Amino acid sequence: MVDVGAGAVSCEAVRRGDRKSLAHAIRAVEENDPCATALLAALASSVGRATRIGITGPPGAGKSTLTMRLVQCLRAVIAIDPSSPFTGGALLGDRVRMSDVAGDAAVFIRSMAARGELGGLGRATADAADILDAGGFDFILIETVGVGQSEIEIAKATDTTIVVITADSGDEVQAAKAGLMEVADIFALNKSDRPGSDACHATWRASLDARFREAPSHVWQPSLVLTESQTGRGCDELRAQINRHAEHMRRSGGFAARRRQQIRARAESLVDAAALRRFWSADRRDRFEAMASSTLSAHELAAHFLDEDSA
Amino acid sequence: MVDVGAGAVSCEAVRRGDRKSLAHAIRAVEENDPCATALLAALASSVGRATRIGITGPPGAGKSTLTMRLVQCLRAVIAIDPSSPFTGGALLGDRVRMSDVAGDAAVFIRSMAARGELGGLGRATADAADILDAGGFDFILIETVGVGQSEIEIAKATDTTIVVITADSGDEVQAAKAGLMEVADIFALNKSDRPGSDACHATWRASLDARFREAPSHVWQPSLVLTESQTGRGCDELRAQINRHAEHMRRSGGFAARRRQQIRARAESLVDAAALRRFWSADRRDRFEAMASSTLSAHELAAHFLDEDSA
Repeated sequence: MVDVGAGAVSCEAVRRGDRKSLAHAIRAVEENDPCATALLAALASSVGRATRIGITGPPGAGKSTLTMRLVQCLRAVIAIDPSSPFTGGALLGDRVRMSDVAGDAAVFIRSMAARGELGGLGRATADAADILDAGGFDFILIETVGVGQSEIEIAKATDTTIVVITADSGDEVQAAKAGLMEVADIFALNKSDRPGSDACHATWRASLDARFREAPSHVWQPSLVLTESQTGRGCDELRAQINRHAEHMRRSGGFAARRRQQIRARAESLVDAAALRRFWSADRRDRFEAMASSTLSAHELAAHFLDEDSA
Repeated sequence: MVDVGAGAVSCEAVRRGDRKSLAHAIRAVEENDPCATALLAALASSVGRATRIGITGPPGAGKSTLTMRLVQCLRAVIAIDPSSPFTGGALLGDRVRMSDVAGDAAVFIRSMAARGELGGLGRATADAADILDAGGFDFILIETVGVGQSEIEIAKATDTTIVVITADSGDEVQAAKAGLMEVADIFALNKSDRPGSDACHATWRASLDARFREAPSHVWQPSLVLTESQTGRGCDELRAQINRHAEHMRRSGGFAARRRQQIRARAESLVDAAALRRFWSADRRDRFEAMASSTLSAHELAAHFLDEDSA
């Protein structure tokens, strides 16, 4: 038993996949409860079996519906909502739609708010994924909306990254194609009943083939799957590609290397945060605030503060 | 004259708006040239006259075309490209289209790559905006793509934030409406010739009115402008709203407060970066790397490292 917030969480119940205990534990990491670290340490030996799958793409590509489809065939999800750090309030859009599948006893639904962290995929999400992993789920889905940074963030935090695009994703997705090909393990060309989907598929297919033609065999060439999340078309193929990718990564050793790198990066950012907490003593904070009310520019202010600080 | 990289930049030439000197100075901040700080310090007294305008919104909303329109009537731009930290290469899409207006002698085009920083709007962009400000431009446009974090980032770095939406921006933009209303100073409902634009306009209008009905008069209620960037429809109105907002912010004192807050936040992140550089001595780095190759979890690794570090 680890004391967390108002009560205690039994590690054994988390490992058993007990819904209430999982929810309690995830709430603790979301709320940055200091005891959450003890809980995660206690669970550490049970973490590492689940496959973490990131789902990302531009707004309107149909990520949420596709995520729901995958939840139905793979079981287990964390959905990331965009949220406003101005209000601190999470938006309920995805959460509501997710409730369509929440009745399924094998599915655990928890919607994480992105709290002002890069791409929205922060410490709490990685911690929550660890808790669900310890809870015995085979697949953990992490959904985030975005173009640019968030694909990269999700690729850094998961075993498999699915980038959802559509034939009308627009110029900006086309312009980002080269970057996306480095990040995506699987492209889901969604809403494939729409006009232009076949042409879009042929273009991406040709781009992928051209890019990976001379790549060595241990390099994974991203799959391209036509999906139609409304009807469920292509979801079996998507699941097959997820398994194919996991298999490839396990065989090539890329899986273990990617996870070790993720742990290293998470640990480094925890150390950074601790170092900054240590640095910003009350005394330093007071001196900085006193200087900040001057008319100095940002660089001058920082330089003055650091000069005085080292003196 | 301040020595920067290969040569020297004359502060006087920057203040005169000399293109070559501006380009040279911006390259220095982009490349994180250590002398760039000296240059910015020398220019500090000439910074603060320009109005900084952020343009953001989901992919495909037509931001680049609208930015080009605003460049034509307001003059001066920085465009942010999404870029891949995996290759470090900037994508050229926007840059190419921006060349349509680059021939205009009064327009300075510089496309900043977003180098893995939150929302893409990093230190270099703020510094480059300072340089263009010192160069005598009245309006500096900063364009970024995104939904969620990047609107917030751009609002933190500019005087006026324009969020570009369309009638078919999709559910995710609808879901983010409340958050966007806190960030946007002006909404441009673009591609307003498309079906559904009038209904979309009415919905946003009603939402804005409901939200700001009881707000005190010093609070700015975001404007909502119908635009059609292909034809230029609505651009005069957009310019009028930019001026109205700047006027309101100057009168209410919000302008000065916002800028002071921006300088404070920029200075704090410069101090943070310096504190972390100081913290990560070669010795600490070596000890961390040695621990990172173990099989510890992220929290365990961070805790072990910090324990040993304080011992």
